[in-house]
Amino acid sequence: MQLPEPGATSSEEPPAQARGPLMIIGGAEDKLRRRTILNRFVAASGGTEARIALLPTASSLGDEVVEVYDALFRKLGAAEVMPVRPESREDAHDPDLVGIIEKATGIFMTGGNQLKLSAIICGTPLGDAIVAARERGAVVAGTSAGASIQSSHMVAFGTGGATAKQRMTQVAAGLGLVQSAVIDQHFDQRNRYGRLLMIVSQSPQLLGIGVDEDTCAVVTSQGDHEMLTVLGRGAVTIFDPARMATNAYEAKRSSPLLASGVVLHMLPAGAQFDLTTRTLVKPEEQVSDEDAAEVLEAQRDLRHLARDIAAADKSPSALRRRLARTRGPRPAHGPDPQDGAAPE
Amino acid sequence: MQLPEPGATSSEEPPAQARGPLMIIGGAEDKLRRRTILNRFVAASGGTEARIALLPTASSLGDEVVEVYDALFRKLGAAEVMPVRPESREDAHDPDLVGIIEKATGIFMTGGNQLKLSAIICGTPLGDAIVAARERGAVVAGTSAGASIQSSHMVAFGTGGATAKQRMTQVAAGLGLVQSAVIDQHFDQRNRYGRLLMIVSQSPQLLGIGVDEDTCAVVTSQGDHEMLTVLGRGAVTIFDPARMATNAYEAKRSSPLLASGVVLHMLPAGAQFDLTTRTLVKPEEQVSDEDAAEVLEAQRDLRHLARDIAAADKSPSALRRRLARTRGPRPAHGPDPQDGAAPE
Repeated sequence: MQLPEPGATSSEEPPAQARGPLMIIGGAEDKLRRRTILNRFVAASGGTEARIALLPTASSLGDEVVEVYDALFRKLGAAEVMPVRPESREDAHDPDLVGIIEKATGIFMTGGNQLKLSAIICGTPLGDAIVAARERGAVVAGTSAGASIQSSHMVAFGTGGATAKQRMTQVAAGLGLVQSAVIDQHFDQRNRYGRLLMIVSQSPQLLGIGVDEDTCAVVTSQGDHEMLTVLGRGAVTIFDPARMATNAYEAKRSSPLLASGVVLHMLPAGAQFDLTTRTLVKPEEQVSDEDAAEVLEAQRDLRHLARDIAAADKSPSALRRRLARTRGPRPAHGPDPQDGAAPE
Repeated sequence: MQLPEPGATSSEEPPAQARGPLMIIGGAEDKLRRRTILNRFVAASGGTEARIALLPTASSLGDEVVEVYDALFRKLGAAEVMPVRPESREDAHDPDLVGIIEKATGIFMTGGNQLKLSAIICGTPLGDAIVAARERGAVVAGTSAGASIQSSHMVAFGTGGATAKQRMTQVAAGLGLVQSAVIDQHFDQRNRYGRLLMIVSQSPQLLGIGVDEDTCAVVTSQGDHEMLTVLGRGAVTIFDPARMATNAYEAKRSSPLLASGVVLHMLPAGAQFDLTTRTLVKPEEQVSDEDAAEVLEAQRDLRHLARDIAAADKSPSALRRRLARTRGPRPAHGPDPQDGAAPE
């Protein structure tokens, strides 16, 4: 485990700020053109020093999927791409596989069958290592099935449709990187309003998070708040059912559900949402999409820098290169107490 | 115009209560089996004394549509079915056609192209006669296009999809039977969340009302409140954007919209919603679906009875038959001050 040494940074960084970002991708992320999301993932994982653990377990096309992402991540500059492919809970106890997660700076879980993925890794040393990796600052990303598994409660499978109906979907337990939430993906494209609304109707303490294709919810810790920023082509839809009225506890068979008073947030690229207070961050208080990218990179760089200083394993020129990459003194959510970026 | 004589009923009925109900049907209403919605329409229009004006103008299959509904309404007991088929604004000034509307107890507008329907009838004597018919107590019903046209703001056309995107739909002016609202239909089946949300994002003073297929929003006036009750197989979805934050005034091209803080109500059969206060009517305060049917019929019957007494044109046996049909003294929202039905 590569936790940064306490005291390695000049200010007292609360432990939550050492957490790496989550990247929750709604599937079908652009792999050919701008590659906005995948670029962000590699950059946040350390760019040319990224060591990426790639988990294709959800997919039935394991080898091909590994080939595609391996080629992509290397093309985008990653130093190393290491497949981690447990096919049983037994495999997920293998210290070699766990070791790869432990030294990764970025973890990427592919699409496929999230119930297979969760059934194999949740509650195993490998699953625990993913949770720990985020705590020590690694990026945890996943697309489609790899997005679903990140929430505490996971859509196992179900049917599409805009109207919430009893029994239209099933819930299983996910990795819990996002607590008190359920994440759904391909949200617009597969018309999954209804099933996400069904789940939050039955569990009104959960936030429902629906992510469109080629769209990413980036979740970062800022102090004791979890902030969600949207990246990509579509939108992230959030259902907050905290004050809802529902008949989900008594609705029969597959009848449409009553779900009244759900607060809906539809968030396009650049929108920022405070998952802790469940409110939109006003645009004037908000870090722009571009700034957010810089912040992510800067955070990452600063974290590396702190680690490197502690380990004294880098030449001064490497440090200079890194500092140059942060593009000036704006580590908005890093150790610098002058937080928050002014609008440009 | 057949306005009931003032003083014809024993108590002072406020003018709003003389209004007939609206029946806003999301398309594809069941015509073969239980026919819940169509049955309700014929009953509310007076049952065996219903004189139904049928407007197939939205449809490109005018004659066939007339045949189908004519046969259906007669089978369900209507006394008369009178086609009213203006094919131009000129036609919509024809006193003969307007006369049919004026003597109808129920008006039914078919599906098809709502922009054709609105372009032909809105702002003509025929369109005005439909609005006036409701004020004097006639039922105004419409399915699909015939539902859309009932709101003040009408979805003209657009594309499907769950995520709201700029320019995905166009708005035109409707009949305005439901003010400060926009109605969409085939809501679940054609995945119209996005476009309805786009419209309310651009016009946050409007309530967005999405009606599923084989589902009906029955709107009645109760004092100075407009109440919506759901009938049928699907749900009615309501977006209340009053407190939303949005970027719809500046979003470019077809980009996904920000729409944060929209209050969502998904209402299955039996649910009741106060359109005036924009709140769910709690189940314990609510008139059950069955009771609502009786109330509608009883209201109708009482209104007829009052008219008949005033006109003294009925035999005592006809009056007795009618009274029997009201199934006991429960005119919950009629002149009887003992309002509200006890659960059975």
